Order: sequence, then structure tokens, then C-alpha cells
Amino acid sequence: MSSPDWIALDWGSTNLRAHAMQGTTILAEASGPGAASLPDAMAFEFALLGVVGDWLSDAAMPMLACGMVGSRQGWIEAPYLPTPSAPLDPSAMVRAPARDPRIDLRILPGMRQASPADVMRGEETQIAGLLALHPDFDGVVALPGTHNKWARISAGEVVGFQTAMTGELFQLLSTQSVLRHGMGEGWDEAAFEAGVTEGRRDAERLMARLFTLRAEGLAGELSPDAARSRLSGLLIGAELAAMRGWWLGQDVALIGAPTLTARYAAALALQGNEARQHDGGAMSLAGLTKARTEDRS
Amino acid sequence: MSSPDWIALDWGSTNLRAHAMQGTTILAEASGPGAASLPDAMAFEFALLGVVGDWLSDAAMPMLACGMVGSRQGWIEAPYLPTPSAPLDPSAMVRAPARDPRIDLRILPGMRQASPADVMRGEETQIAGLLALHPDFDGVVALPGTHNKWARISAGEVVGFQTAMTGELFQLLSTQSVLRHGMGEGWDEAAFEAGVTEGRRDAERLMARLFTLRAEGLAGELSPDAARSRLSGLLIGAELAAMRGWWLGQDVALIGAPTLTARYAAALALQGNEARQHDGGAMSLAGLTKARTEDRS
Repeated sequence: MSSPDWIALDWGSTNLRAHAMQGTTILAEASGPGAASLPDAMAFEFALLGVVGDWLSDAAMPMLACGMVGSRQGWIEAPYLPTPSAPLDPSAMVRAPARDPRIDLRILPGMRQASPADVMRGEETQIAGLLALHPDFDGVVALPGTHNKWARISAGEVVGFQTAMTGELFQLLSTQSVLRHGMGEGWDEAAFEAGVTEGRRDAERLMARLFTLRAEGLAGELSPDAARSRLSGLLIGAELAAMRGWWLGQDVALIGAPTLTARYAAALALQGNEARQHDGGAMSLAGLTKARTEDRS
Repeated sequence: MSSPDWIALDWGSTNLRAHAMQGTTILAEASGPGAASLPDAMAFEFALLGVVGDWLSDAAMPMLACGMVGSRQGWIEAPYLPTPSAPLDPSAMVRAPARDPRIDLRILPGMRQASPADVMRGEETQIAGLLALHPDFDGVVALPGTHNKWARISAGEVVGFQTAMTGELFQLLSTQSVLRHGMGEGWDEAAFEAGVTEGRRDAERLMARLFTLRAEGLAGELSPDAARSRLSGLLIGAELAAMRGWWLGQDVALIGAPTLTARYAAALALQGNEARQHDGGAMSLAGLTKARTEDRS
């Protein structure tokens, strides 16, 4: 391949996605270990070289990174931008310490909201990517993942945001709790939609609904695939109830993994909201590219 | 010690509590591994002999057991009593297969409710113990634990019950989720009570409240002890909201570990409900003793 002039790094808790870039053109991509599995700066540097080493020459290579790589448990803590503000500020990037002189890596700031207290790292760059592609977007961006973010966007700024731990809760309940005994691997859309409706209507009673999945499974009334799909629906429905003020009557843009945004789009459609879906990886790259462009100008 | 004439076994998921009994008198007690850690019948037998071996002579020893030892993942599956019915039916006990002829062990049935689907194992014996000590009790029994049970008692029968997974959810969130980074070991009663009030009032918004603990911790606004106590309060408050129909205007008896029933008593007191507390181990033993008495008569 021709020589990259910079490298884009979307470095979250569970994955590193790296792109070798020439301007705005993707030359190559690769993936590696997430930030949560790396104990210290040396481990981050070692992991990075394992993933992008082939793209380096003798010269220092500019790299821009977003995500949990900049958290307190990451490579080095990057600052937070306050709300309200634009989701991107290349002047607030922090340089990661590295022994290898070929590594010229800077991490984008996250965002912090004072009250109610909330933080994000990585999602702000995806929002910046969406705004780079749709500069006039005005509405709400929902970013389902381990920690789902809901952000209100107006005039190119993140006005406020809120996190729901739905993704992590689903992961814990379906793989670590007593409910795991009755969970399949497949998907049952009808059970999912029934769960969404129930969770949305009875969000206040969520704590009393979860164990029913186990009891109905023991009674042979609920298949493992239906149980897992209904659990997902229940939690997403309860999240929609909790976040009602964020999506009701709003233009909603969903950013994330396609299978996950599809679930949220289906759940929102049941409430009469037709949300648009955007691929999370593409939005990260668009945001990092925007940061690269602004940084050079 | 003098010779026991039977052994009482309270064998839950995480603990075995054994009592060497002479009639209704406790001669000795011992503890051992919970049912969840034992893979098959041989492992149960081996674990049991390790705990009660010293209490056995050459003759077969009658033993009565309750709890998850009778689940599908236990020693052998015991039947369920339907609701409504009395919580104790010695005629429905099942014998556990054992190679050692000194083991004459029978497991008490659990209880099952058809609709909404629900199950319990072990708690029905604690309820039977409460009723043995307070035959005229009429009201609601709440049994906080990993899976909290709320049961309506009338005329000596369990009329219906419902499970909330609050205990397991607290365990998962405080030790496995991202919230674990900000959790202390101590207790902050004021933070707990604030959490109860918030969880009770905003149960519908629970999914959006949890991450705030992490964000406030990162911002230095919430101490680790206060974070853990508020998480406990939030979940218990949300449970009280979900179970409102079970305790509002009812006589509530709490059965469980004293530290846990104290938390629920405090949370209920904030709602103006003065619940009475009963020790879970004592109620199990009273229920098993009642079964032994009825079985012999």
C-alpha cells in the first residue's frame, strides 16, 4: 500500500480499531485489544505497535485516538469538554507518553456534564462524525453500547447528555445472573417486541419482572431464545421509559453496531418514532478525520 | 454431645447450614459449601459427609433439607407445592440418592405459582417457621436475599408471591459492572436513605440513574462508601416501588440476614411501614423442625 500520513484509532474498552489513512482515504484497517485489558502505558504502547507496526516508517507517525484509551484507567487521562460545547476540540488533545519515537499519538478529550453528573469518551467523536456528515442535524443522538448515551444536539453543540447502563445490565443479567440458565443464542423478534412494550409500560415494575423469565423458563413456558430476546426488550423498553423526554417528538439518530441500532430502531418504531441508523465505526472514523483536518488547518 | 436423632439442613445456593438436633433441641451446628458449587449427587454426598460426618453413628440418620439442594441443579429435584397452599407438606418430600447407608435425607418441596410464573425454594420453609412461631400471622412476608421473595399469607397459606432480583442485581452492579471502580466497603446510612427515596420516587427512571454514581464518583462528588450505600438504596427503593401493592397498608414480616432485614426495615420505615424483623437461619430451623414434627405424627 502507499504510505499513510496519519493513523486513526478508535480505542474503546473492549476493542481497538485502527485505520491507516492518507488524508481522508482509508488505506488499511486492523484491530486489537481494548483499553480495559491493558494495565499500564507500556501495555498500551506494546499493543499499539502490535497492531500498527507494519504501517510505520522511521519517521514519527501522527495518530489520533478517541475512547476509553483516554480514561483514568487508560493510557493517559485526557481532559473533558464541558457541556454545552461542540463535541470536538483538537486544541484540548493530550499526548500519550511513548518510548518509541515513531509514535506521535494524541487523544481527543471526552465530554463531561456537571449536573446531572455524566461523562462520555468516544461517543463525542462519533457525534462529531455525524455532524461532519450532516452539519445541520438538530435533534437527539442515541448511541447504544455497553453504556448507552443519549445526547441533545443543537447548533452543532452537545447541549446535554445522559447515560443508561442498559447494555452492561443486559450483559450481566444474561451471562452472570441466575437468568443465564435459561438464555439461548438465537433471536425471537416477537418476544423482543413484547418485552419492549412491557418494559416501556411497566418500567416502574422492572425489578419485579426480571425473575419471571427464569420462572417461565423452569415451567417450560418460555424458550431460551425467547427469554434472551424478551430480556433485551424489557431492558430497552425500560430505558425508553426512563429516557422518554429525550426521544418523544424528536429527530433521533442512532449510532452504533448495526445489530444494536436495529434493535433500538425497532423499539422506537413501536413508539411511533422513526429513527435513522448510522454505523458506529464509520462515525468514529469521520470524527477522527474531522479532528485531523481541523488540527492541520 | 448426646446423640442427635435427626439433622436439619438449610442448603441454599451459597451455604449449607447444618444443625444436629434432638427433638427440638439444637445439639451442634456446622456449615459447608452451597448447592451452586456442587456439580452432581456424588459431590453433594461428599460435601454433606464432610460437614455432618462426626454426628453419625452406624445407623441411618434422618435428615431434612430445604433450599436449592432441591433444585434442578441441586442434589435431586424436589417437587413444588402450588399456590395457594400451606408452605409445608412433609408428604411431598423427595429422598436424595446416597451411597452411604447412614444418610436418610429427604428434601422439602419448594413452591410454584402458575401466573405470574414464579418459584421459591427454601423461603417456603422459613415462612413455615414463622407460622409455627406465630400461627395467626396474616399479612406479607418479605424475604430479602439474592432473590427477594414477597409472599402474601392468609389463614396459614401462601396465597401468592413474587420475586425481585434486587440482591443479585446489587451484587452484579457493585462487583462486576463499571460501578465497581467507585464502590467502598463501608456504609453511609444517609446516602442509603437518599437512594431509597430517589429509587422509590423515580423507579421508572432507574435505568438512567445508575450511571450517575460513576459520573459523580469521577467528579469527586461521591465517596466510595456513599456510592455503594446509595446504589443499595436506589435498588431497594425501586423494588419498593415495583412491589408497592405488597406492602402498602400491610403487616410486613421481614425474614433474612439481620444486616439485610435492617436495610429493608429502614427503607420501609421511610414509607411509614413498621416491619418486624426475623432471623432467616432461625426461621429455617423452625420450619424444618415443624416438618420433622409433622412427619413423625
